[in-house]
Amino acid sequence: MVDKALRLRIDEANEKALEILLDSQPVWLDVSPAIEVLPGMTENTILHAGPPIEWERMCGPQRNGVINAARYEGLADSADEAALLVERGEIRLAPCNDHQAVGGMAGITSASMPLIVVENQPYGHRGYSQLYQGPGIQELRWDDYDEGARNQWRWLEEVLGPALGAAIRARGTLDIKNVIARALQMGDECHNRNSAGSMLLLREMMPWLLKARMEHTTLEESVRYLSGADQFFLCISMAAARAIAQSAMGYPYSTLVTTLSRNGVEFGIKVSALGDRWFTAPANMVDGLYFSSEWSRKDAVPDLGDSAIMETVGLGGLVQATAPTLQQFVGGSFARAVALTREMRAITIGTSREYQLPNLDFEGAPVGIDIRKVMQTGITPIIDTAIAHTRGGVIGAGQVRAPMGCFAQSLEAFYQEYVSLRPTS
Amino acid sequence: MVDKALRLRIDEANEKALEILLDSQPVWLDVSPAIEVLPGMTENTILHAGPPIEWERMCGPQRNGVINAARYEGLADSADEAALLVERGEIRLAPCNDHQAVGGMAGITSASMPLIVVENQPYGHRGYSQLYQGPGIQELRWDDYDEGARNQWRWLEEVLGPALGAAIRARGTLDIKNVIARALQMGDECHNRNSAGSMLLLREMMPWLLKARMEHTTLEESVRYLSGADQFFLCISMAAARAIAQSAMGYPYSTLVTTLSRNGVEFGIKVSALGDRWFTAPANMVDGLYFSSEWSRKDAVPDLGDSAIMETVGLGGLVQATAPTLQQFVGGSFARAVALTREMRAITIGTSREYQLPNLDFEGAPVGIDIRKVMQTGITPIIDTAIAHTRGGVIGAGQVRAPMGCFAQSLEAFYQEYVSLRPTS
Repeated sequence: MVDKALRLRIDEANEKALEILLDSQPVWLDVSPAIEVLPGMTENTILHAGPPIEWERMCGPQRNGVINAARYEGLADSADEAALLVERGEIRLAPCNDHQAVGGMAGITSASMPLIVVENQPYGHRGYSQLYQGPGIQELRWDDYDEGARNQWRWLEEVLGPALGAAIRARGTLDIKNVIARALQMGDECHNRNSAGSMLLLREMMPWLLKARMEHTTLEESVRYLSGADQFFLCISMAAARAIAQSAMGYPYSTLVTTLSRNGVEFGIKVSALGDRWFTAPANMVDGLYFSSEWSRKDAVPDLGDSAIMETVGLGGLVQATAPTLQQFVGGSFARAVALTREMRAITIGTSREYQLPNLDFEGAPVGIDIRKVMQTGITPIIDTAIAHTRGGVIGAGQVRAPMGCFAQSLEAFYQEYVSLRPTS
Repeated sequence: MVDKALRLRIDEANEKALEILLDSQPVWLDVSPAIEVLPGMTENTILHAGPPIEWERMCGPQRNGVINAARYEGLADSADEAALLVERGEIRLAPCNDHQAVGGMAGITSASMPLIVVENQPYGHRGYSQLYQGPGIQELRWDDYDEGARNQWRWLEEVLGPALGAAIRARGTLDIKNVIARALQMGDECHNRNSAGSMLLLREMMPWLLKARMEHTTLEESVRYLSGADQFFLCISMAAARAIAQSAMGYPYSTLVTTLSRNGVEFGIKVSALGDRWFTAPANMVDGLYFSSEWSRKDAVPDLGDSAIMETVGLGGLVQATAPTLQQFVGGSFARAVALTREMRAITIGTSREYQLPNLDFEGAPVGIDIRKVMQTGITPIIDTAIAHTRGGVIGAGQVRAPMGCFAQSLEAFYQEYVSLRPTS
């Protein structure tokens, strides 16, 4: 039984946590290797998406990604050796989110990888994300550790990362919320669709890429890459979202969700008042469109990736109404997109002042998922996401619901912790 | 009295004219000075927006533009001399549209001005448009012929024009319909809003600007300009729209509108079956938002500019539903935007296969205004447009209706010409 005084105290804490999300001003500062910037990072640490998971239970894309990253980093010469080192604990695995980082899909992040560095200026928290690894490339998660993939990672590390780093340092900072706000007016929901955001970013950075006076080949290669990467902005906005959510963690009495994340086996969440604790439940399968007829549901792993950090801060699935093009992935309609955004309003604490939705007459985006409201309504967050192959690689895109279980567990834990503390007034 | 055989013949002709609009494939080819590319252009010709108009009746922005262009071209040393030369006929005035060109707002186009060159590939017709002259600059229509304005025009002529020309020649061609189709999915209606189109253009051209290996200062200046010019794409799409409409002109029996244009005094249209004849009626005042509180309706000239060529080919006002942000100019709503697109469907011959509107579940854009349908329904095209000051310069933006008069006159002329030719079957 929850008394009125406790309810008020929770409401107050949530209003405060919401204000943090709304007041946040994440700015892009730098691009640096993980080992140099990530709190707690070591040479033999490999980070992954989602909540913690034992090596034996890891999904295919993550296992392959860990093995390939170990070889890329020179920790192991073969897949077998890499697996052995992980089993012995000589290679340490940990969730990106436990290191203020986020990684798309498998989320594999190792020491030398260049990371986007974003700071939430009024609060000082930082968020980090790996670079978008390119459309259609093998990434650090496909089954084959081939020369093409290795060359692409090397190029990201030695060419694109330093070029972007030089450009953003020349510029100073880039206000990410401003780019997101503009992208929302241009049909992006900033998770599965980032066409506008990626172009806005290129446009903002282009003069600085020129000013940084890099080698002409580096400039040409970087511009060609950025011009063709419709999803590039996601890696910047994910780092921003992690920085924002980081600032809202650890507020006593707040039932605000501060992390939504998946490892292809389990869906995990964190809640403000409960700090760094994970609450997990089995991940759902994604409904969506496969990019080729050779793939179907049987080739897909369940929901995977840290990119649900976008929904955590009120974007992606929560603002379907602004991105009706994405309904093509799920055979939906504009009316369905609007209905989903209305539904998400029922489980959120407030609305954004900066993120306005033109199709809803500039209503603010729903922001701040409240575990109480999820449990009261039976509505879980809808997440826009890509679909990963069981061996790794993106084979489709669509939508998925967060499972109820993690919200139920977290609310139970919340009351265990806070009901005993409730004011006696 | 119009008999059934004539109606069928008109319907057939309109279907054919519509197919031309739909099949058109305008590609950007070049940037060249008007004198080198424009059919019928001479050193002492100055073109203007809208239907033909006598010097004495010209609106302020056009008179000032003509005078300033005459001075810029070295035809006159003073405003008085320029006016005298125009009065004596030594400077020749003519509508842009009569030279396969279109010009935004006053539309002043003189011999040395760099023009966008677009070719409608399956049909071979070309369309031309001056370069977008920049946000907030004085342009060739403000009252003062000052050094700042002159330097800006010189820069467009000597720096940006040649840079863009080199880039597009290096690339070969650029498919404009493809850019428009993508922009429509990103909240542009491609007349008053071109944010997405301008970014798509920059992204498409950036690798070629680099490849053309121009001087670094030229590259930096051009990129800075293009990065800041949200309306830039309009000059490319207007040239494309003119090229498309050009191909649909002169089809006997077709009541398709092939030009919508305004000179700040009169609104003029052309109709396919009636070739180059203009039909005019007094231009309406624009409803909209003024960019500063210092301006109001009394500072504005009536509807001005050739940019309604966008509505002529089924964009701008006809596809309001895809650009709800523009409702902010007129205090409207998303529902109003949708209603206007539905209304426009009632006066058009068909819908686009390539231009799809996500907010209407990917329905095709209404295309091909039929003067018969306008007269039958009493609905005239709605046009998104900027608002010009009586002395020149853009002071606002909003929407305006084409006047009924020009459609009534054109239909009367059509029947005069074609009823006598009707088949006797």
